[in-house]
Amino acid sequence: MHKQSFWIWHYGDYEIFHTMELNLRREVREKPYPPFWRLSTPNVSVKFTKDFNCENNTKITVHANGEGYVSINAEKFSFNEEITLQKGSYTITVNVFKKVGLPSIFVESDIIPSNGSWYSKLSDSNKPMPVGFDTYYDSIEKNPETFSFEYSEIAPISAEIISDGVLYDFGKETFACLNIDYADSNQKMSVYYGESREEALDFEHTYILENISKSSYYRLKSRAFRYIFIKGATTSLKVTADYEYLPLKYRGNFCCDNQLFNQIWETSAYTFHLNCREGFMDGIKRDRWIWQGDAYQSSKINNYLFFDDAIEKRTAIGILGNEPFCEHINTIIDYTLFWIIGLYDYYFTHGDITFIKNIFPKAEKLMEFIESRLNDEGFIVGRSGDWTFIDWSDIDKTGAISAEQMLLIAVYNSFAKIKQALNLDPAKELEKAKTLTEKVNYFFWDSQKGGFIDSYESGKRNVTRHANIFAIMYGIATPKQIESIKNNVLKNDNITKITTPYFEGYELDVLGKLGEYCYIENMLENYWGGMLKLGATTFWEEFDPTKNGIEHYAMYGGKYEKSLCHAWGANPIYLFGRYYLGVYPTSPGFETFKVEPNLGGLKKFEGTVPTKNGEVKIYLDSTHLKVTATQSGGTLIFNDKKYALEKNKELIIEVI
Amino acid sequence: MHKQSFWIWHYGDYEIFHTMELNLRREVREKPYPPFWRLSTPNVSVKFTKDFNCENNTKITVHANGEGYVSINAEKFSFNEEITLQKGSYTITVNVFKKVGLPSIFVESDIIPSNGSWYSKLSDSNKPMPVGFDTYYDSIEKNPETFSFEYSEIAPISAEIISDGVLYDFGKETFACLNIDYADSNQKMSVYYGESREEALDFEHTYILENISKSSYYRLKSRAFRYIFIKGATTSLKVTADYEYLPLKYRGNFCCDNQLFNQIWETSAYTFHLNCREGFMDGIKRDRWIWQGDAYQSSKINNYLFFDDAIEKRTAIGILGNEPFCEHINTIIDYTLFWIIGLYDYYFTHGDITFIKNIFPKAEKLMEFIESRLNDEGFIVGRSGDWTFIDWSDIDKTGAISAEQMLLIAVYNSFAKIKQALNLDPAKELEKAKTLTEKVNYFFWDSQKGGFIDSYESGKRNVTRHANIFAIMYGIATPKQIESIKNNVLKNDNITKITTPYFEGYELDVLGKLGEYCYIENMLENYWGGMLKLGATTFWEEFDPTKNGIEHYAMYGGKYEKSLCHAWGANPIYLFGRYYLGVYPTSPGFETFKVEPNLGGLKKFEGTVPTKNGEVKIYLDSTHLKVTATQSGGTLIFNDKKYALEKNKELIIEVI
Repeated sequence: MHKQSFWIWHYGDYEIFHTMELNLRREVREKPYPPFWRLSTPNVSVKFTKDFNCENNTKITVHANGEGYVSINAEKFSFNEEITLQKGSYTITVNVFKKVGLPSIFVESDIIPSNGSWYSKLSDSNKPMPVGFDTYYDSIEKNPETFSFEYSEIAPISAEIISDGVLYDFGKETFACLNIDYADSNQKMSVYYGESREEALDFEHTYILENISKSSYYRLKSRAFRYIFIKGATTSLKVTADYEYLPLKYRGNFCCDNQLFNQIWETSAYTFHLNCREGFMDGIKRDRWIWQGDAYQSSKINNYLFFDDAIEKRTAIGILGNEPFCEHINTIIDYTLFWIIGLYDYYFTHGDITFIKNIFPKAEKLMEFIESRLNDEGFIVGRSGDWTFIDWSDIDKTGAISAEQMLLIAVYNSFAKIKQALNLDPAKELEKAKTLTEKVNYFFWDSQKGGFIDSYESGKRNVTRHANIFAIMYGIATPKQIESIKNNVLKNDNITKITTPYFEGYELDVLGKLGEYCYIENMLENYWGGMLKLGATTFWEEFDPTKNGIEHYAMYGGKYEKSLCHAWGANPIYLFGRYYLGVYPTSPGFETFKVEPNLGGLKKFEGTVPTKNGEVKIYLDSTHLKVTATQSGGTLIFNDKKYALEKNKELIIEVI
Repeated sequence: MHKQSFWIWHYGDYEIFHTMELNLRREVREKPYPPFWRLSTPNVSVKFTKDFNCENNTKITVHANGEGYVSINAEKFSFNEEITLQKGSYTITVNVFKKVGLPSIFVESDIIPSNGSWYSKLSDSNKPMPVGFDTYYDSIEKNPETFSFEYSEIAPISAEIISDGVLYDFGKETFACLNIDYADSNQKMSVYYGESREEALDFEHTYILENISKSSYYRLKSRAFRYIFIKGATTSLKVTADYEYLPLKYRGNFCCDNQLFNQIWETSAYTFHLNCREGFMDGIKRDRWIWQGDAYQSSKINNYLFFDDAIEKRTAIGILGNEPFCEHINTIIDYTLFWIIGLYDYYFTHGDITFIKNIFPKAEKLMEFIESRLNDEGFIVGRSGDWTFIDWSDIDKTGAISAEQMLLIAVYNSFAKIKQALNLDPAKELEKAKTLTEKVNYFFWDSQKGGFIDSYESGKRNVTRHANIFAIMYGIATPKQIESIKNNVLKNDNITKITTPYFEGYELDVLGKLGEYCYIENMLENYWGGMLKLGATTFWEEFDPTKNGIEHYAMYGGKYEKSLCHAWGANPIYLFGRYYLGVYPTSPGFETFKVEPNLGGLKKFEGTVPTKNGEVKIYLDSTHLKVTATQSGGTLIFNDKKYALEKNKELIIEVI
């Protein structure tokens, strides 16, 4: 009887392989649409190795995804060959190559089953490092090149004959492989995908379509849709779909007296789940790419819903890719900075020091790249080809801009803490953070305007909300500055409003910190509630109440280019968890954490927030507060009083 | 009528793709055998771009090796689609990705045919660079993933029935695809390849074999062999082969009064041709890998036979591969150093500044890597995993060893000259070469022993020929030191002899410089002549006259692991061209060159040496010297007299 084995690969290759596959799946009207940034590929040739002692005679069989050979104490064997070993000590090296694919092995053995105890290297000149593996791939049949999705059959709720075809409505947004059966193989058909009914019927502009013929059964690629129109179809067709999803455990929940808010929470959870796949996707229809800015916000949502660390790691490894790091992540300056900030956030929330150890060498290289982009003042600036994004807004992007410097300060502080976690000296980064903060205040703080200006080089002294929001988010602004920003920028209607839900996510986070519950609840009601009123089954990339009809679906110059299922639309999950239930870690991995529940404008709520090794259940109404934490280290803060939370013991407080 | 188009790719991808393919073709008894170093892969996603004006309406069709789309002024089109453009100015971008292979395009157009005027980039954040292309790929049908080999049918000169099969002798070593026709498809057969008759018949030890069945016709992979034994074959089989070769033009030749030497020259030329493929191979049977040390010597031979610059570039680009450069080439310290030295040699001989410009950014990165491997003294030393090779000999490899430092001095000087050629300041490198030379003399020169010692750290003060040979090769030793090395090292029988033909190549080069013709002719007679006496049709990896029978075929512990067709075995081509015909450049690209013919121990010879833009024909006997150069800039040096060579004018000198 063999011990449990898993497929193993060179650390990082699995994530880089699946990120490459994902990034290359985007299509526009039957045209493949690769990303505009450099793509990393997995390594083509890997050596897996392990030293071991064999007490009794034993048999070993090496299976491989790729070509090559097995070497045991320099004797060569083939893959799939049963190798018999006598008592003795051995070094096994498995040489595997696969020209783009995922070189990996599965070793059947009762003494050296393939698992995390194996090592791999790309060259005999490398120091072997621990392999990567995923417990999902626990049998020879489960090829790690096939991602670990699960499937469940779904059927349309209606089929409507329209002119020369049939329109199928699946009732809500989904992501699935369409199955078309009992087709006439002589009949050419065109399949139009629509997130909206209008898109499915607008043949000239449908974003995704596929022409099919010559078969009586079709199984199409997994794609996003609610409506499917099949031109040339008759009702005699059998049309179903296999919903493709990641089996994630819902660990967080929230329920309150406001039914709209509950519906918003549920719809956010579904929206987010659809976007949690190989990594954190931005939206399931159009890009299907991983964008670091979107992923950074998805992490915050994940922490209050799934608390899944695997997807966080897949996203971070996959989007960073392989060296050399000679361009910004997604070509965007701010996104490179968010990668470092997000890395520490991940460690602080999930307390996963093993991952930090594994990724640190690459993180250091990314820091080197960041510092290669600084000007003489030590400010990060855009070089030719760099995209200074921050937000779609009227930010003055002349020279060094304050919003990027705020992120750079956060980067230095985050990297310093990462080094501390690894027992390395953080002095250099802390010093840089300090110096940069002083410079930022000197060059960008405008005491007349009571906020940070975008650029000092242009002389325009334009103020936008963005840098000021970051200054509060990352604890850069002093209490005095925060007060000033609140009154002169955030609550100042003459300062351009945030128009994108992406940056609105940051603004709401800051307003939450500042206790502006009223503003948050108005947003929930009008912005998210507004989408639900229009029948949204998942939250959109953007929503403007002043638009009408199909205007809502237009974006980036395309009639239906807006994503109607966009990860950042699920932000309410974070808002309810972080500012209503009020749970957050105060040391890495929730070793200590705080619970600061707040009713805001609600009458009552109850909910659960997942923690590293447990969860916190909270019930709050006008008369009672009940809190139970299944992990120790918690401190309840309520009405300016502190209460230690005992593990598994419900704490009940009467609200006076 | 369209203008001539060529397949184009991202610069370097073609060479890296074919080097990867080549390196992954090694096999040992049906087991694939990947290299032990890190393999580079071509880029998976490339954007080809060009700005152009269109005077009249025109049609363009883009063909691609890969998936993606065409964008012209932001409008999207498909591959193979005839695109009609009106008068106007345009930017075309072709987005192509291919997961396994070489992303490349072929554009049919009368205004923007795909050729060297196109640019490509890996990311929108990159500055586009000129594409790579090869005039061989001049039609849609010629896929650049198929290397530009040519084929000619060859047949065995004998078929001999032996026990249960037939032995075919092709008369001489070759590299070909075997064709087996009129086979009984129910008959399982085993094909054994042999560079020697013994190997083909030694079924347990044949290095390359293939089991075949279930067909009446087989075409096997291209492999090296002279003999083929097919177990299970009958004489009713039709066995032929397609000789696979690169159509290289023989530009150099040599003929003298010594018939053995002429046979050595011819056999060397054939041996070398067989090894000139995607790049300079070490040997055609066993490794089929590109080793920088071997390639460095192949360049010297190429310069006197084919003068083919394309193979030099393919080798340099392919073996260097893609960043990051975090290990030595082939994991060997000396080989990384030879890459830089060889790069300048290539420029000096072929005067190809375009290539130097293209490769310089990577060359700089390689220099950074080299300098990351220096110790506090500025000596290059082996770090964990690095292979300090130099030669298979009893070199004292303790700490910093002198042979590597000699190469490092040459690297600094070569890189300085490369920078000069690019109008960059070479001061830094020249200073380093000077300082390092002083240190090497201080730490390694032993005046008692009259030569350079291997290591000063061990205290053994062991002297081998290697560092001393390099010291003379690279002009590091002073005239006084050269004289001392000659007497105390090279001509000192107590100093271990060079036993490998690899390093013998360097020793003979130095002895040629020192005018030791007698030694060279003895080597030709006994070493190369010795192989011919044993019936060699190509020159071997190594030859030891004291061995007998199949002992000659053993190496690295394998009964037939020695390569019987090894590139460095062709070294006589270089010796005759460089030291007998005596032609060599004295400034980049043969703008000036010298002709120093020397009869050595010969009665007469005539021959041709190719130059950048012509050739030099030389006839010399005891009474006359005749020299014709078809390129200007030549100076004849004969009997201590100098004569300017006029282009295309024969110069005749009476030998007194």
